[in-house]
Amino acid sequence: MIVRPHQHWFLRLFDWHGSVLVSIVFRLSLNLLMSVIAVIGYPWYSTFGIHLTTAPFSLIGVSIAIFLGFRNNASYARFIEARTLWGNMHITQRSLLRQIKGIRGIRAEQVQEFIGLQLAFSWALKHRLRQTDAQADLRRLLPEKWQRAVVDNPMPTSQTLLCMGEWLAQRRDEGVVSDIVWQSIDENLNHLSAYLGGCDRLAGTPIPFAYSLILHRTVYLFCTLLPFALVADLHLMTPLVSVFISYTFLSLESLAEELEDPFGTAPNHLPLDALCVNIERNLKAMNDEFPLPEPRQPDKYFNLT
Amino acid sequence: MIVRPHQHWFLRLFDWHGSVLVSIVFRLSLNLLMSVIAVIGYPWYSTFGIHLTTAPFSLIGVSIAIFLGFRNNASYARFIEARTLWGNMHITQRSLLRQIKGIRGIRAEQVQEFIGLQLAFSWALKHRLRQTDAQADLRRLLPEKWQRAVVDNPMPTSQTLLCMGEWLAQRRDEGVVSDIVWQSIDENLNHLSAYLGGCDRLAGTPIPFAYSLILHRTVYLFCTLLPFALVADLHLMTPLVSVFISYTFLSLESLAEELEDPFGTAPNHLPLDALCVNIERNLKAMNDEFPLPEPRQPDKYFNLT
Amino acid sequence: MIVRPHQHWFLRLFDWHGSVLVSIVFRLSLNLLMSVIAVIGYPWYSTFGIHLTTAPFSLIGVSIAIFLGFRNNASYARFIEARTLWGNMHITQRSLLRQIKGIRGIRAEQVQEFIGLQLAFSWALKHRLRQTDAQADLRRLLPEKWQRAVVDNPMPTSQTLLCMGEWLAQRRDEGVVSDIVWQSIDENLNHLSAYLGGCDRLAGTPIPFAYSLILHRTVYLFCTLLPFALVADLHLMTPLVSVFISYTFLSLESLAEELEDPFGTAPNHLPLDALCVNIERNLKAMNDEFPLPEPRQPDKYFNLT
Amino acid sequence: MIVRPHQHWFLRLFDWHGSVLVSIVFRLSLNLLMSVIAVIGYPWYSTFGIHLTTAPFSLIGVSIAIFLGFRNNASYARFIEARTLWGNMHITQRSLLRQIKGIRGIRAEQVQEFIGLQLAFSWALKHRLRQTDAQADLRRLLPEKWQRAVVDNPMPTSQTLLCMGEWLAQRRDEGVVSDIVWQSIDENLNHLSAYLGGCDRLAGTPIPFAYSLILHRTVYLFCTLLPFALVADLHLMTPLVSVFISYTFLSLESLAEELEDPFGTAPNHLPLDALCVNIERNLKAMNDEFPLPEPRQPDKYFNLT
Amino acid sequence: MIVRPHQHWFLRLFDWHGSVLVSIVFRLSLNLLMSVIAVIGYPWYSTFGIHLTTAPFSLIGVSIAIFLGFRNNASYARFIEARTLWGNMHITQRSLLRQIKGIRGIRAEQVQEFIGLQLAFSWALKHRLRQTDAQADLRRLLPEKWQRAVVDNPMPTSQTLLCMGEWLAQRRDEGVVSDIVWQSIDENLNHLSAYLGGCDRLAGTPIPFAYSLILHRTVYLFCTLLPFALVADLHLMTPLVSVFISYTFLSLESLAEELEDPFGTAPNHLPLDALCVNIERNLKAMNDEFPLPEPRQPDKYFNLT
Repeated sequence: MIVRPHQHWFLRLFDWHGSVLVSIVFRLSLNLLMSVIAVIGYPWYSTFGIHLTTAPFSLIGVSIAIFLGFRNNASYARFIEARTLWGNMHITQRSLLRQIKGIRGIRAEQVQEFIGLQLAFSWALKHRLRQTDAQADLRRLLPEKWQRAVVDNPMPTSQTLLCMGEWLAQRRDEGVVSDIVWQSIDENLNHLSAYLGGCDRLAGTPIPFAYSLILHRTVYLFCTLLPFALVADLHLMTPLVSVFISYTFLSLESLAEELEDPFGTAPNHLPLDALCVNIERNLKAMNDEFPLPEPRQPDKYFNLT
Repeated sequence: MIVRPHQHWFLRLFDWHGSVLVSIVFRLSLNLLMSVIAVIGYPWYSTFGIHLTTAPFSLIGVSIAIFLGFRNNASYARFIEARTLWGNMHITQRSLLRQIKGIRGIRAEQVQEFIGLQLAFSWALKHRLRQTDAQADLRRLLPEKWQRAVVDNPMPTSQTLLCMGEWLAQRRDEGVVSDIVWQSIDENLNHLSAYLGGCDRLAGTPIPFAYSLILHRTVYLFCTLLPFALVADLHLMTPLVSVFISYTFLSLESLAEELEDPFGTAPNHLPLDALCVNIERNLKAMNDEFPLPEPRQPDKYFNLT
Repeated sequence: MIVRPHQHWFLRLFDWHGSVLVSIVFRLSLNLLMSVIAVIGYPWYSTFGIHLTTAPFSLIGVSIAIFLGFRNNASYARFIEARTLWGNMHITQRSLLRQIKGIRGIRAEQVQEFIGLQLAFSWALKHRLRQTDAQADLRRLLPEKWQRAVVDNPMPTSQTLLCMGEWLAQRRDEGVVSDIVWQSIDENLNHLSAYLGGCDRLAGTPIPFAYSLILHRTVYLFCTLLPFALVADLHLMTPLVSVFISYTFLSLESLAEELEDPFGTAPNHLPLDALCVNIERNLKAMNDEFPLPEPRQPDKYFNLT
Repeated sequence: MIVRPHQHWFLRLFDWHGSVLVSIVFRLSLNLLMSVIAVIGYPWYSTFGIHLTTAPFSLIGVSIAIFLGFRNNASYARFIEARTLWGNMHITQRSLLRQIKGIRGIRAEQVQEFIGLQLAFSWALKHRLRQTDAQADLRRLLPEKWQRAVVDNPMPTSQTLLCMGEWLAQRRDEGVVSDIVWQSIDENLNHLSAYLGGCDRLAGTPIPFAYSLILHRTVYLFCTLLPFALVADLHLMTPLVSVFISYTFLSLESLAEELEDPFGTAPNHLPLDALCVNIERNLKAMNDEFPLPEPRQPDKYFNLT
Repeated sequence: MIVRPHQHWFLRLFDWHGSVLVSIVFRLSLNLLMSVIAVIGYPWYSTFGIHLTTAPFSLIGVSIAIFLGFRNNASYARFIEARTLWGNMHITQRSLLRQIKGIRGIRAEQVQEFIGLQLAFSWALKHRLRQTDAQADLRRLLPEKWQRAVVDNPMPTSQTLLCMGEWLAQRRDEGVVSDIVWQSIDENLNHLSAYLGGCDRLAGTPIPFAYSLILHRTVYLFCTLLPFALVADLHLMTPLVSVFISYTFLSLESLAEELEDPFGTAPNHLPLDALCVNIERNLKAMNDEFPLPEPRQPDKYFNLT
């Protein structure tokens, strides 16, 4: 995610990093090349009666814009849903700790043990979504007695949640947690389970492949044919207008593809690292465990992972 | 569902499987034929004053694009809702097992019995939605004592849920489950009931038939008349542009029709088989029942059912 | 609702029933007549300088398509909300019965009494929404002792719900239902109350009248003037294109009006009869009351009410 | 709100009341005047090279239609939200009374007292939203002992809710309401609080002012310049087409403005009076307090407030 | 937020404050300058074959309008979500106080203490979102005994919530709050935690930067090239039409950027100050602590922060 300080509107026009420009610059160059071919070749190939006009391209262009608008909507909704799931996880983690700390008769090391399980859950989820190795973080965060049950399990995130349920059941057995309080805390464990499931669903079910494919294909074919349709009217101005129109369509198509899977580490993806550290800082501050870990800082391109 | 590894943007242009191209290739050929007829016949039929222009086709084309955008939205929303229902089922099944395992005084075989009922529910729902025979899976998964009540019932999914409620009532009678804990677990049974009902609703209530019909008809009529409107301007280029525009409209109409019923086994449908196996793997791992069943793998066209 | 078996794409083009074509065929004929008048009268009236062109009609046509898309969205959302309310009612009725059957010490005739109240609620709601007489169904379904309180009340649906609350309070007085269990069941009664209120809201609050009126008027004026705008370019082809464009706009406007009130008995309305029978079948099967009533079958036009 | 009996499609075209036509008829006349000026002045002012064409107006017209569609969506969403809040209030009021009547040991006059508080809440909310004086209705509905606390308070709606909480606490003190039952009823009081807050939010936070302003301005400027763009093509037909296009844009802009604040008494606003009487009728019928107050009837223009 | 009394439609056209006009007036002047250059330079530069036409600009303009409509939707959804979060906070704060006041055996100074914590939460959230210093307000509102725990904490909002949980746990220890009542109140604390998390999420996660950037860039390039495309048709009218079209696009783009972060103090931002005072007034009135603080009044430009 890019966390850029406020820019003047004029400077923003020439901002390079953080846009998807990098990933489409080759395709735009291709379009420029086609435009030059169209301008140079037009006098020759039009003698064979080969001839394209703007009108049908206006029809197909607006139609593609409508469908591309739909695809952008769908991708952006996934991005927002992913962010909301992580935001809600932060909320529930905080509520859980508040409930735990409000229990009378609970011992400080038990609270710390539970915080360890909470943090392990967040970091394990991050590693799961980015398909990186969770071992190191699990060993760092998990209390000794729960490590064995989680670290070697094929599904550590789900297993951590099970441990939290077990921790809670132990407190109920000890008599410090009544059934009613158990119910309130258990509901929040259900919520954590829901965020895990929601993230899994987003990561495992892309937008139906045919949508991406149809739009991808029509956008490219449209941009490739466009210079030949514009050249009869625009002559020398064809490259300028053609690249401009192609930029609009290609960049939005490319961004939609990037936002579709919001759990990666590209510039427009969610900063899962920073979110995990935020949760860690918040829970530790609530339990007066200072000093807090440092928050993640954006790099020099304002990029935060 | 198609689970394709990341493709280079150029290769993706020529991807064949997984698009709906297969199902519209005949209709595109028809459109090509009409284009050729238009090009050849134009000099002859235009002498009778029969003449179509691009302008009104631009109007109708953009209007159809707007309505088609709406239909795509509606179909995609059904796809997403279906996926969310199955995702939520996974979540609730996991939460249920966590709650069951947290009960003190429960015996291991009782937990296994309950897991059997949980899995039977998922598989029975899958068979119900795909209208296949659930008998084999029910016999495989259901504990002996619950088989009779479910297998021959005309509504096995709903009946399995009733058995879960009965299992829970028995535990309450035995005194291992208090009223409060019963309430928390019962709420999750209500959720399972809601997912069953939600899937039934999606499967039983298509998008109003007239919508499909009107769009289907106007898209076809539009594509059929299009070459005759383009030919005056484009002459020899008519087939290229006409097939391109028709591809955009026909493929999206066809995909919308496919996504409308997301429970089938076509490439853009939900992989219910794989989802059922995932739930089975997750629940068994939570209860340490190794080895787990193998996850379903996509076939050589990356297709997962 | 139309429940049509899968059709070949070609046959579907000529499907007559189930589209809204029946209701707009007169208006399309009028449009055809105007087109013929335009074609014949053009050489004469154009000598007076009376002259329309396609360009402004393209502007107004696309604008109307955008607003019509909005109206369709709003109408379809009402259809979906209505269907979801009935689907949720089915879900809640099933959950209620599961909860009732899980109570220890409850007598079989008490369960049957409660099922009677449940079914009376569904059928009474159907009659309320279609403004038909609920007496016969209420007498058929209601247990003797609750009939008097409901049948002559001006609001039988709401009264049935009150009786279910009273039934539940009696069980609590008898001591078979604890406060906690009462709470869980009472929450489901709240849900039933919400579905009743939701259906009432949809039935009693149409889309603001001015929306329907403005769209209705502009669509008609647009279709009436259209032939005169097309004739200068299209001459003899005017009737074909004009009727095609009019069909798209008129049929979608007409369907939007039909879907706006989803509780009727027209082809695109909800099959409330069938839904009521489904609920009845499901509840009776859960209570082993065989034989079940027959499910409603679509008529020969695949129409289900 | 307009509650019109079903009209024939042809009659509906000439319906006058209930549309927003009344409020824009002056502006349409201005547009007609501009058109006449354009037709008459065209031969003269075009000699100075002052000249507008349809093409850029098509671009700006379609753009405005897209943004206007967005504004309509936002206004309509507010209308729907307002209606849903009032519908949900009806539902919760009914559920509350069912819960109260299911309590054993409660006295009839206590129930009546509570109904008085319920009705006072609805009417006070209506007066608050329409900024009318609630005194008369509060004195009519509130039981003697609660009047003093509410009538002179600067926030009578919120205060009535506080009284309902106090009434409930008194019943808990008397021992007729257990903690669990208190919890269920208290949750419904929370819901009432949410509807009050939701209505306040809608009434107090309009759509950001700049949206209304930008659309208002561009629609007017567009309609004013339109005749001058059309006249070159359409000559004598300019006034007809210009007024038609202006009618579409102006009427939808005007309706969006009307729907934005749905709590007024204009034709497209919510019938809060009728809704309050409905709630009163429903609650009284549930408590057998016949005769019920008469439901509000639409006036001769089918208008209901 | 601008709270403007109802304006006549004609006066509204010339309203200056409260629109985003101020922030784009320089860019509109640039556009005017380009138009004049286009008009003057056209006869000269067209001799080199440099030539732009309206048709491709119509295509790109409508496409940009579609994407801009999407961006506006996304920004507006953030604004609405932010407003709903604050509205819900008001609702929950009121419900909390009603629950607290309904507890028997609670002392008046304990209630006041809790109100202090509630108000501190609202004001601390406001300061957090606007990145201003919360110290003064925290000292003013917080009861003595809770000040130390909150004021110097790096996360005072979250800490205040923890104190509310601690206050509640103390009441449970004193025996005036049963487990069930604790549960109901604790659920509302969870809600407060959710609003805090929701606001943090909105403030910390802008719309993906590339969206803003692509739209910003294409809108500016479009407006810059537009005069050169219009000049061939419109000659002297170019500046008028070009500035009009640019105004529509630039003002909506600028507003979308402003609404994206709704917690600032610009004219179209949320009036967090006024909302905090409203909550304070409401809670104090419920506890009969008169006189109430004065509500915030809009300044002479109808602007409320």
